[in-house]
Amino acid sequence: MKLLRVGEFGAERAGVLVDEGRYVDVSDVIGDVDAAFWAGGGPAALAPVVAERVAAGQVTDLGDQRLGAPIARPHQILCIGLNYADHAAESGAAAPDEPVLFTKSPNTLVGPNDTVHIPRGSEKTDWEVELGIVIGARARYLEDEAAAEAVIGGYLTAHDVSERAFQIERGGQWSKGKSAETFNPAGPYVVTPDEVGDVRNLRLWLTVNGESKQDGSTKDMIFSPTFIVHYLSQFMVLEPGDLINTGTPAGVGMGKSPQQWLAPGDVVELGVEGLGSQRQDVIAAP
Amino acid sequence: MKLLRVGEFGAERAGVLVDEGRYVDVSDVIGDVDAAFWAGGGPAALAPVVAERVAAGQVTDLGDQRLGAPIARPHQILCIGLNYADHAAESGAAAPDEPVLFTKSPNTLVGPNDTVHIPRGSEKTDWEVELGIVIGARARYLEDEAAAEAVIGGYLTAHDVSERAFQIERGGQWSKGKSAETFNPAGPYVVTPDEVGDVRNLRLWLTVNGESKQDGSTKDMIFSPTFIVHYLSQFMVLEPGDLINTGTPAGVGMGKSPQQWLAPGDVVELGVEGLGSQRQDVIAAP
Repeated sequence: MKLLRVGEFGAERAGVLVDEGRYVDVSDVIGDVDAAFWAGGGPAALAPVVAERVAAGQVTDLGDQRLGAPIARPHQILCIGLNYADHAAESGAAAPDEPVLFTKSPNTLVGPNDTVHIPRGSEKTDWEVELGIVIGARARYLEDEAAAEAVIGGYLTAHDVSERAFQIERGGQWSKGKSAETFNPAGPYVVTPDEVGDVRNLRLWLTVNGESKQDGSTKDMIFSPTFIVHYLSQFMVLEPGDLINTGTPAGVGMGKSPQQWLAPGDVVELGVEGLGSQRQDVIAAP
Repeated sequence: MKLLRVGEFGAERAGVLVDEGRYVDVSDVIGDVDAAFWAGGGPAALAPVVAERVAAGQVTDLGDQRLGAPIARPHQILCIGLNYADHAAESGAAAPDEPVLFTKSPNTLVGPNDTVHIPRGSEKTDWEVELGIVIGARARYLEDEAAAEAVIGGYLTAHDVSERAFQIERGGQWSKGKSAETFNPAGPYVVTPDEVGDVRNLRLWLTVNGESKQDGSTKDMIFSPTFIVHYLSQFMVLEPGDLINTGTPAGVGMGKSPQQWLAPGDVVELGVEGLGSQRQDVIAAP
């Protein structure tokens, strides 16, 4: 199942994709793609309703409606740093022995094609295409990776926009450079694991103004999605609807020689194989 | 005004303290002490209702009811590290040039007298009494400290429980050691700024099993509450109801010689002058 949210920011309606251009509105059934949805049965409970509505022809054209982030604002956005050896190397860091955790403010979440704001005072805004995990059930002290697999609700394409000066040069701890408004485009949809195929073998790519910047594969992840979810559950309680960005492959602007940064007027496109693609106009924060 | 929340975890009712043992229930008026409350007029809009109910004798005894955290689960919990020079010194760190930001998972928030869980696998669980700021209005790119003052909804006593091995020895970034369940007792109440007096001159104290561990004053903060709120608003959007823990004075277990850690059976008591005190039994995480 591919879940999405359609409509203006803050007033999105939940739907299920039928084919590339059409969806079934399910907002009257589930309210939103939020913690209550995941905890209350999630996609499995919703599937019969979708089948009925498709059979009855209750299908809507996406047309030019805005796509919101495919999940409601989560309880938390967790991020794994340096999870691809080639990106760790370009960052001048050693490959980590265990997952590096940092966070983004949940209100950074925006739709896949919304504008990205260069923060006021920024000189080093950078891109990062990532595979995102959506948690499907409350999880604490998971026993093993099989238990972790059972609490993964789905996957999505995520853009972990980053301001490197704020992140690295402004007094310790990365969250400061990860949390500006619009810094987490997500979607276009969240895809349930049964439709993802081998999550350890998905291509990730990103272009700026049509020029390829990142082109990697999740097969080069140091820590797998199930490893990450099991690991994090030893340190905190994961809530249904939580988003985990699992790290970026090589090719970020900080790693180029000379370094490259986003500027107003740039267009960023990115995607993860099977999870859909995004397109963002970059503007100065109003 | 002193706002509190009374009742079992997840089913707390909002109230306003009348005197040490009595409160007015306002849950029917405001729902909860959450983002919608702060954005919808907050304490100023609520005051006439409270006055009416006190005049009508609609006052309830606290009795032995549980106190919840005095705010609903916030959008984010932000924390300032090393904000007292004496604590930076005992941590072996230089006093920072600008605020050090890290985060706690919002679901760490518990009531002031709830049990604190030593996480599974922990050997270095530590205490930190702090002044907490509750944001009262959405804030981005605040112009100056006066604008920051205007978006502070109130203050509370916070316990920033920390696992030092998870924080420092497990692969970078502090959030990993700050986010275990029960790691953010808060309350007993959130106090509006007009009743706090001089927030730069409040005593903070903490004892373990009756023995004094921390005894400081907010006058020794490096960065003031208004400085912090103005500063953070340059990097992210603050939402009404967000909690900011502003750092701890000297006396944490990590800074003792030899180092000291919490263990099951310990009792931690702490408070901030004018903001009330907390008492937690420490147990092993079930």
